Amino acid sequence: MEKLEHIGIAVKNMEKAHSIFEALLGREHYKIEEVASEGVRTSFFEIGGVKIEFLEATRDDSPIAKFIEKRGEGVHHLAFAVNDIKSSIEEYKQKGFELISEIPKKGADNKMICFMHPKSTGGVLVELCQEIKAGG
Amino acid sequence: MEKLEHIGIAVKNMEKAHSIFEALLGREHYKIEEVASEGVRTSFFEIGGVKIEFLEATRDDSPIAKFIEKRGEGVHHLAFAVNDIKSSIEEYKQKGFELISEIPKKGADNKMICFMHPKSTGGVLVELCQEIKAGG
Repeated sequence: MEKLEHIGIAVKNMEKAHSIFEALLGREHYKIEEVASEGVRTSFFEIGGVKIEFLEATRDDSPIAKFIEKRGEGVHHLAFAVNDIKSSIEEYKQKGFELISEIPKKGADNKMICFMHPKSTGGVLVELCQEIKAGG
Repeated sequence: MEKLEHIGIAVKNMEKAHSIFEALLGREHYKIEEVASEGVRTSFFEIGGVKIEFLEATRDDSPIAKFIEKRGEGVHHLAFAVNDIKSSIEEYKQKGFELISEIPKKGADNKMICFMHPKSTGGVLVELCQEIKAGG
């Protein structure tokens, strides 16, 4: 793993979260992007090279809606950048980690992503993410 | 706020967490430090300029023991570096944020710290931390 790419935070209302975190971080979100396939609207802040991603459900069966129902608003996942997500998935499987899906899917922010099951990562939902290269 | 200083993760067993995160991050923790006043043992990993702090309770009435009892293991707090914690506390109070304690206390890793209440920060337990300067 190269670096912590972002922290995902599940929120009920993105606009409310923006007003809180703009006051907290002293800066504004720089983009909003919907990932229709996942039923989420995302937005991004940046602080010192790390992104904070807010996730708001766009439908009731969204994983974010279910997360908030169970655990309330708060940190949802930690995402780490990898250079080659397919080889990382193989590497972590061999090390005994459990992937929620072994097939990377398109996430927000021009990334291919997959999640590792929190029961194999000490209770933390870990995302692996790889920048989608132009033409690749 | 200057940057994300660290992510705090509550764990039941630090050694088990180390073996998971050493396999995940491809690096070892670089220090262990007990904060007796808080009833926690902490350890640190570093990845791309961000620290990951593991927190293990050393007694049953530790805030970490209570957190795990309620919510299970996982991300406990996000800590942001500030230059002057006392003036940051005043600034955030004036902005309407609720501090758990308005008096900074000594935390791990040579820091003065204080926490903001998750109900004023979108469900995220936010720590403000300031490096303790030599002689200051």
